Amino acid sequence: MTAKRQVQKLAGTLCISILFMGSTYANSNVGSPTSLPFYVGPLDQTLMTSPTKNVSQPHNTYILPATPGTAQWGVFNNKLAPVLRIKPGDSVVIQTLAAADNQVIPGVSVAKIIKMNNAVANRGPHTLTGPIYVEGAEPGDVLKIHLNSITPVPYASNDSIPGKGLFPQLFPNGQVSYFHIDLQKKQIQFAPGIVIPLAPFPGVIAVAPAKPGSYDSDPPGQYGGNMDLRELTAGSTLYLPVFMKGGMIWTGDSHAGQGNGEIDLTAIETAFSEFTVTIDLIKNKKLEWPEVETPTSWITVGYDTDLNKALDIVKAQTVQFLMQQRHVTEDAATKIMYKIWDCPIAEVVNGVKGIYCIIPKNHSTVPTPLLSSDDAQSFVTVSKDPDALQAMSTASMAMLQKVAAAKNMPLTQVYILSSFTMDCRFSPFVSGEKEVHCMMPKSLWVG
Amino acid sequence: MTAKRQVQKLAGTLCISILFMGSTYANSNVGSPTSLPFYVGPLDQTLMTSPTKNVSQPHNTYILPATPGTAQWGVFNNKLAPVLRIKPGDSVVIQTLAAADNQVIPGVSVAKIIKMNNAVANRGPHTLTGPIYVEGAEPGDVLKIHLNSITPVPYASNDSIPGKGLFPQLFPNGQVSYFHIDLQKKQIQFAPGIVIPLAPFPGVIAVAPAKPGSYDSDPPGQYGGNMDLRELTAGSTLYLPVFMKGGMIWTGDSHAGQGNGEIDLTAIETAFSEFTVTIDLIKNKKLEWPEVETPTSWITVGYDTDLNKALDIVKAQTVQFLMQQRHVTEDAATKIMYKIWDCPIAEVVNGVKGIYCIIPKNHSTVPTPLLSSDDAQSFVTVSKDPDALQAMSTASMAMLQKVAAAKNMPLTQVYILSSFTMDCRFSPFVSGEKEVHCMMPKSLWVG
Repeated sequence: MTAKRQVQKLAGTLCISILFMGSTYANSNVGSPTSLPFYVGPLDQTLMTSPTKNVSQPHNTYILPATPGTAQWGVFNNKLAPVLRIKPGDSVVIQTLAAADNQVIPGVSVAKIIKMNNAVANRGPHTLTGPIYVEGAEPGDVLKIHLNSITPVPYASNDSIPGKGLFPQLFPNGQVSYFHIDLQKKQIQFAPGIVIPLAPFPGVIAVAPAKPGSYDSDPPGQYGGNMDLRELTAGSTLYLPVFMKGGMIWTGDSHAGQGNGEIDLTAIETAFSEFTVTIDLIKNKKLEWPEVETPTSWITVGYDTDLNKALDIVKAQTVQFLMQQRHVTEDAATKIMYKIWDCPIAEVVNGVKGIYCIIPKNHSTVPTPLLSSDDAQSFVTVSKDPDALQAMSTASMAMLQKVAAAKNMPLTQVYILSSFTMDCRFSPFVSGEKEVHCMMPKSLWVG
Repeated sequence: MTAKRQVQKLAGTLCISILFMGSTYANSNVGSPTSLPFYVGPLDQTLMTSPTKNVSQPHNTYILPATPGTAQWGVFNNKLAPVLRIKPGDSVVIQTLAAADNQVIPGVSVAKIIKMNNAVANRGPHTLTGPIYVEGAEPGDVLKIHLNSITPVPYASNDSIPGKGLFPQLFPNGQVSYFHIDLQKKQIQFAPGIVIPLAPFPGVIAVAPAKPGSYDSDPPGQYGGNMDLRELTAGSTLYLPVFMKGGMIWTGDSHAGQGNGEIDLTAIETAFSEFTVTIDLIKNKKLEWPEVETPTSWITVGYDTDLNKALDIVKAQTVQFLMQQRHVTEDAATKIMYKIWDCPIAEVVNGVKGIYCIIPKNHSTVPTPLLSSDDAQSFVTVSKDPDALQAMSTASMAMLQKVAAAKNMPLTQVYILSSFTMDCRFSPFVSGEKEVHCMMPKSLWVG
């Protein structure tokens, strides 16, 4: 080894040992020399339990803060040690961070966000708290995750990155906007005269897939992940199949709300000050894709890079669900599916695109037919095409142009507003052309 | 220079440049190699403004996230560049962090906290967001800071450090406890059967003093700071004298609640997800010490290393306030002061100790006399001594023993509960022995 090489090796070793000695947290504020970097190792789980209501209470409530040691940027890595181990029936108060290790926050430019997004290949923008290990969970089981309550931080962001989103050619420059979330009124002031009510939900909840190693948090899949399923609000329950021992649960990409489609790439992106879940385990239950239960409905999902295939998957899942739940034949289940059809588009911007179908618990409930033109409550656009994504694109573009003209707003602003609030759904699809209806509530305009 | 020395120098230079390249944020979770350290420079103020309700609204609302670049650990340094510049009348949604650069969080041991507290001399435990520069503020002016709303993060801590607190000899080992804050019910489950309602307020709000340089955030003073004034909740207004151009406002040491006395050293310590203030400027107004306005009262303060002197200061401030407000002579103001006397002890554990007097806005309001023995609502203890701190210590110790016996609780637990909820006040003091009454509400026990 040459002297130069020796120097390099020692310098490298020293730096790496400093950087990875724990969570190195150097305060950069010039003139603040007393703020030293300090070591925080893994959290001590015995100090993460909250006192119970009575001494005989069987289940624990754990608090899981988001720190550099409990959250990761943009990957699910199933080699990671769990940051918390719980028993079925326990609750966890999870904190989540804003995108890119909490760096997409008011005051950060789109140039910086683009740089961060492009710095590492196969890394999503999400910051993910976890993984949480559930004792006794084995492949072939199902995790039942009930969402008790969600409180966002008081700000949100939306960014469009060049080359991404549904219309990258129309908005080539990228943009970022920041918003104050009024936690008292539970709303966002989008612009003068435009107010959006909050509907917070986790954009990402995932379990580890069987495949070992580290994988991009962007595409959703059978393990859940970046589902962007806006019905998954407090009070609902998510069922996820277990692929790896302990399940290994992550959450992030915290949304204060989202339009069905998420067309400009991002939702009302925020972080959760508090996201409280109760996690149960169902042993030996077959489940191919995630399912969601709300107080009034069941939800099946379909995700694929091809939106047409995603539609096939959600249809197959829905038929399967109805056969099991109502003890009917495939033909009968198919007939019921078309009768109760209510299938929004989760998102079309994560590479893997998603659709979900809402199945009312009350067997006699039939959804109101989709609107085909504006009424007093909604702007409406409709498009048909043999290709599902083309139908979605045409209907979305028509909405952008309609609202921009009606409200005298710049198209860039309507793009964001659509990503926040537009609701696009498929008509019942049997064969031939696929039809997408997009709605935007007129109630957003309060001025 | 020897070869070995060369190696050391190069290694050192490389490491320091990596650590201080900005906010070095290295994810330590082994097996997460894609989480790179990333630079975040100062925030761009034009991207910190929230959209207004209407286009003609004259004032801005800014969002100030807490980052390594906008928050400092334990010092007010008036050489720091402002992290935000606002105009009088603007509002700021401030985020704050938990103690020690957000490292006193569930899962962190008391040994680690002691190590962090002792690592640097003359540094408080608080993490302080700021400084905020108010345009037009000059020495001789007064800043009027109205507290609009406060939302804590969903967890809190309490720690006692060896050698500190009111009874260091009795609790020599130090301890830390963590609690879940139920944001929906606005309460803390302290222990099975014991529930504490939330009353969040900032333990620290400060302006920069005239003295240049960096100063410890622990002792409060005429610049405000670590006042631990639990009446300073949402809806109240703080008046602080300006000592330096721009005022330079910091806040931190965020409390979900606190007992008057804060006897075990810390309160219900938390961080604020959101702390929204509106800041106004009053030009050319004489103000020696901070004042607080609540919907029903005015509050004067006195802080000194000697609690007897703090009592003298708050009495002088109260007489001064009454003379000005009610246009009366010193003698008349003194008489009014004794008639309306209601003077709790802010805290006795920050080196500089504090008292405040509550002056009702309604001139005919006279406070209920202090209890001298338990009633249906409260445990009560009383002590008299020529020395104010001795009177406080004796009354506090009597409360610890009374509650431990009545509720069969360990003294260490009652120490924490007292620091969270005990309310100690001075009887009207003219001369001779000082009398302290301590109260603890029986309503905390719900079981």
